[in-house]
Amino acid sequence: MLIVMHHNAGKRQIEAVIKAVERMGFSAAPIPGSERTAIGVLGNKGYVDDAAVRDLPGVQEVIHVSKPYKLVSRDFHPRNTVVKAGGLEIGAGRRPVVMAGPCAVESEEQILRTARAVKAAGAQMLRGGAFKPRTGPHTFQGLKEEGLKLLSRAAREAELPFVTEVMSPDTVALVAEHADLLQVGARNMQNFDLLRELGRIRKPVLLKRGLSATIEEFLAAAEYILAEGNPGVILCERGIRTFETATRNTLDLAVVPLIRELSHLPIVVDPSHATGRRSLVAPMAKAALVAGADGVMIEVHPDPEKALSDGPQSLTLQGFEKLMEEMGRLMDFLAGPK
Amino acid sequence: MLIVMHHNAGKRQIEAVIKAVERMGFSAAPIPGSERTAIGVLGNKGYVDDAAVRDLPGVQEVIHVSKPYKLVSRDFHPRNTVVKAGGLEIGAGRRPVVMAGPCAVESEEQILRTARAVKAAGAQMLRGGAFKPRTGPHTFQGLKEEGLKLLSRAAREAELPFVTEVMSPDTVALVAEHADLLQVGARNMQNFDLLRELGRIRKPVLLKRGLSATIEEFLAAAEYILAEGNPGVILCERGIRTFETATRNTLDLAVVPLIRELSHLPIVVDPSHATGRRSLVAPMAKAALVAGADGVMIEVHPDPEKALSDGPQSLTLQGFEKLMEEMGRLMDFLAGPK
Amino acid sequence: MLIVMHHNAGKRQIEAVIKAVERMGFSAAPIPGSERTAIGVLGNKGYVDDAAVRDLPGVQEVIHVSKPYKLVSRDFHPRNTVVKAGGLEIGAGRRPVVMAGPCAVESEEQILRTARAVKAAGAQMLRGGAFKPRTGPHTFQGLKEEGLKLLSRAAREAELPFVTEVMSPDTVALVAEHADLLQVGARNMQNFDLLRELGRIRKPVLLKRGLSATIEEFLAAAEYILAEGNPGVILCERGIRTFETATRNTLDLAVVPLIRELSHLPIVVDPSHATGRRSLVAPMAKAALVAGADGVMIEVHPDPEKALSDGPQSLTLQGFEKLMEEMGRLMDFLAGPK
Amino acid sequence: MLIVMHHNAGKRQIEAVIKAVERMGFSAAPIPGSERTAIGVLGNKGYVDDAAVRDLPGVQEVIHVSKPYKLVSRDFHPRNTVVKAGGLEIGAGRRPVVMAGPCAVESEEQILRTARAVKAAGAQMLRGGAFKPRTGPHTFQGLKEEGLKLLSRAAREAELPFVTEVMSPDTVALVAEHADLLQVGARNMQNFDLLRELGRIRKPVLLKRGLSATIEEFLAAAEYILAEGNPGVILCERGIRTFETATRNTLDLAVVPLIRELSHLPIVVDPSHATGRRSLVAPMAKAALVAGADGVMIEVHPDPEKALSDGPQSLTLQGFEKLMEEMGRLMDFLAGPK
Repeated sequence: MLIVMHHNAGKRQIEAVIKAVERMGFSAAPIPGSERTAIGVLGNKGYVDDAAVRDLPGVQEVIHVSKPYKLVSRDFHPRNTVVKAGGLEIGAGRRPVVMAGPCAVESEEQILRTARAVKAAGAQMLRGGAFKPRTGPHTFQGLKEEGLKLLSRAAREAELPFVTEVMSPDTVALVAEHADLLQVGARNMQNFDLLRELGRIRKPVLLKRGLSATIEEFLAAAEYILAEGNPGVILCERGIRTFETATRNTLDLAVVPLIRELSHLPIVVDPSHATGRRSLVAPMAKAALVAGADGVMIEVHPDPEKALSDGPQSLTLQGFEKLMEEMGRLMDFLAGPK
Repeated sequence: MLIVMHHNAGKRQIEAVIKAVERMGFSAAPIPGSERTAIGVLGNKGYVDDAAVRDLPGVQEVIHVSKPYKLVSRDFHPRNTVVKAGGLEIGAGRRPVVMAGPCAVESEEQILRTARAVKAAGAQMLRGGAFKPRTGPHTFQGLKEEGLKLLSRAAREAELPFVTEVMSPDTVALVAEHADLLQVGARNMQNFDLLRELGRIRKPVLLKRGLSATIEEFLAAAEYILAEGNPGVILCERGIRTFETATRNTLDLAVVPLIRELSHLPIVVDPSHATGRRSLVAPMAKAALVAGADGVMIEVHPDPEKALSDGPQSLTLQGFEKLMEEMGRLMDFLAGPK
Repeated sequence: MLIVMHHNAGKRQIEAVIKAVERMGFSAAPIPGSERTAIGVLGNKGYVDDAAVRDLPGVQEVIHVSKPYKLVSRDFHPRNTVVKAGGLEIGAGRRPVVMAGPCAVESEEQILRTARAVKAAGAQMLRGGAFKPRTGPHTFQGLKEEGLKLLSRAAREAELPFVTEVMSPDTVALVAEHADLLQVGARNMQNFDLLRELGRIRKPVLLKRGLSATIEEFLAAAEYILAEGNPGVILCERGIRTFETATRNTLDLAVVPLIRELSHLPIVVDPSHATGRRSLVAPMAKAALVAGADGVMIEVHPDPEKALSDGPQSLTLQGFEKLMEEMGRLMDFLAGPK
Repeated sequence: MLIVMHHNAGKRQIEAVIKAVERMGFSAAPIPGSERTAIGVLGNKGYVDDAAVRDLPGVQEVIHVSKPYKLVSRDFHPRNTVVKAGGLEIGAGRRPVVMAGPCAVESEEQILRTARAVKAAGAQMLRGGAFKPRTGPHTFQGLKEEGLKLLSRAAREAELPFVTEVMSPDTVALVAEHADLLQVGARNMQNFDLLRELGRIRKPVLLKRGLSATIEEFLAAAEYILAEGNPGVILCERGIRTFETATRNTLDLAVVPLIRELSHLPIVVDPSHATGRRSLVAPMAKAALVAGADGVMIEVHPDPEKALSDGPQSLTLQGFEKLMEEMGRLMDFLAGPK
């Protein structure tokens, strides 16, 4: 931590800050500059609350060097983590995985047909929503437990593991009983009770980045899960909220290599929610692979016109098959001799 | 709903869209323009999912006229709502209320001293956090149930009602037993299971706007609570996340008169979290009153230097007393003969 | 400047950074921490380019303590500046000024009628656009030089000074010949050639904040004008661009007291462009006064329905008269014995 | 244009709106809905100012269907445009071009050495800044005309065309005399006098997207250049400003395929400014190619540690050579039989 003093802070104010730092149990190293003095704080283990100094007279700014996460950090865990989900291995340079399926489970016929089709096209995991978070209460909220059972059956028939969202701590056990990978949606990235509950189970977690979460907050959210004892977290970039409204969100693809530098956890990309437009899904899925993603998550629906949610961003079965062929060639190319 | 066709959409494409609209149970009114055709959708009650038309060939854009909320809307409920919390009446032109207290309950002495001081200065409600959502798991997370009891005792002694945050559905009953007003924090604005649970209790709810929530999403979140049967919701603007980092968040004060137009619910402002800087709290609190807020929520700490969270934005007891005097005069002025 | 090293940066890397700092002509003070080492840079006068160290091996982050501005800073110029424009004094606690008029000058009749009306209502300065920056080239771009002459005539008749926008360096002389205060629009806040040209004239400048300009960039833009020798700059907050689309922009009112802390320059607020909705202009204008603004800028049009630009945010003459009465009482209150 | 009426708008208000539309010279088609009435506006050619109706009683919202651009739109010009710059052909499926060089020209030795190296590595165009826009006036502002001459010489020696920024209308002629492609920087995207001046020359223009420009504004800015008669515009995505500060800007890569849908103009990507971090440049450059970019623009410096600007995001000569090899293989793959 570094405490920057005001231009005209006096000797006494500087000494008061030094004493406050020492009262916190740390030592203080003043660094006199030509325009102002800064005071380094030494001896802390990890992130320090700056409350005790931030508002002292003469203090202009407090700059944090330590981060609010540690277990997820590459600094403290240099080797890439491989997350296992339903027999699949994700991360650490393994061939990227493709998770595919409808936004929401709507009927047995719909999910079964989709599961078989995405399996045939080469997807390694089925996705589908049973518990659906929706902006307003008057739209379709998912088939809930019934949806979970339909998903289970479809996944079993198609011989695919599956991932589905869990929305509250008290349904974690239920969802964990069926799903191979539990998804935390963007709106729940900082639902800390949910994260803690997920930290106590043995199934891996797919954590989606919040709409306006910084990378630091994203990694700190993952830290909640690891801190409770569950090391199996896969991060998922799914677009952030910006001023631009031409796309549903803004896909922040540069976080893929950046998170690779900061963390050992796998990172996958969801181009469907990030863009909200079917025509942009394929180019962004392929761009994600080139950027180094450990996988992609694609919305597919046998009849997008009639989808109860997110139809405009869902690929048709044919569209998905074509994308799988393109991604397959691209993965071969990327895996090839460099 | 309005469906805008591409410049070069042909007759057949237009007819296919009209048929799709009719299959949805609505009627379609084509509006031919000089450059392109638009198709109005008639007969819908409320918001319509556009999935069935959005991806048809020739469709350029789908524009929604209906909103994802109804019960919170002034359109359907023209008279202002007064929310009663612990004997207080909030909203509908009542004199604005001041809620004050520390970010977090830290000790019996701290909360009791603060409660007495804010009462003496004229505050009408005590605030304080027992369950604290924090970015990372390694910092102080609140005293939890113990904090709730300390809050209850301090509020009783100071003869003030109190508001405190509830973070998960399974603690709603516990918090509702003690608190007069239950707060939903910004990170939980779209924790829909929590909102639904709060819709089923008899105590009023203070709903904070999410960091990147649009006004439409904010009102739709309140709709979840009203839709379950609880009409007592107070909205709270507490700053949104923008590119500007000089303040903690950006206080979006124009939402106060705007929400007044759109909704009948009371709206209060939290200038402490919005700005994150003690020196900006007083000017923004007063600006909020002039903008028409039904109340303000102010962080106060007897010793901000030693606060376990949010020290830099907390007023001292003296600072709060001074602000109360200023706000009192301003409220008198605003209530005076216009 | 503070250079933060990686967790596992070795001794050699630290020494290489120290040498690089010394090559830049500064001295380096290493601060060893428990997790990592930071290196303070001493002896710099003002902002330092970090290029020579930022990319050295082992460097994690470079933190700047100095700012890209100096002349506009309160640190170096503690007393408030009063800017004189056409006989008016703005800033330093003077009674706030009201600048009012149409977005664009459209005709002699329109500007003359507006000028007389705003004068009668108590405005101290006329505003109006002759050179209009518009998103696309196919809409009304202003009456240009002709508009300037109409403005001059109307201002003279109404006995008001006037402010108008200048869009390019080569029209600065022309505009300065007529106007009492030259406005730089939000889109041109970082048009540095224009700023430099304005630094060389004797007329004062109203500098609007860019749509996505940080406070630091805003003040650095003003620094361009002061650095060329023109001390007469008035800052203007007019809303920033955020994800929220319910208002045209997001009025960032907390910058008023914040800029007051950071700079000695006057700051005014434009609630018309900030909100883009007539009904929000009056509450936000009054909130701006309470927040400490040195003035407000209000769009007024005798017939907003027929305005060639920005009609929806323009007050009618009657609406403006009413707002002036309300603001007058509020200014009296604010000036009164505290 | 579509005018949406309030829920409770009466017959008279609807009639008044219809009359206002007719006074504007258009015809009005009322579309009665179950909750409210909407009124379609027919007969307009292009974008219509909504001022005359937006503020009529009973009007809730005005929705624009037409766009503020036309010449740049694929609607009106379906075939891709190829822009020729110094013998190169850019766009319309040509093999992507690589523009490379330092942020700023610093010395003859520096630019010459870089020019030769990027040519040897396979770049097809040299980039370098002579006129440099900088946040504050106290940092290096470029070598200006001298820099232009050094660039010319280096480009000639290396047998490469070159692109460089022009900052003001009065230097357009000078820059056009030397450069093969004139760059408009992000801060000047809405410097309309500059755009108009560039519309009058015969050299092509590289238009960078503004920090907070929507795609609509970006295309409308290009429209200014085409409207004056210059059809040679290349668009450049270089990152937008968001709340995320871990990267310099947020690269919005989805605009590449989206602009491809909306416009016939070529689009290139600048991953150096978008990310601001050397380690992210290569993955994002390659991702841009996969997303369909017509070229990339890369900052390269022989000695980034000593660069006078943007060192941290510049590749070394070796780093660039390696990236060129990787991009070469990727372009071969992408061009290969699909």
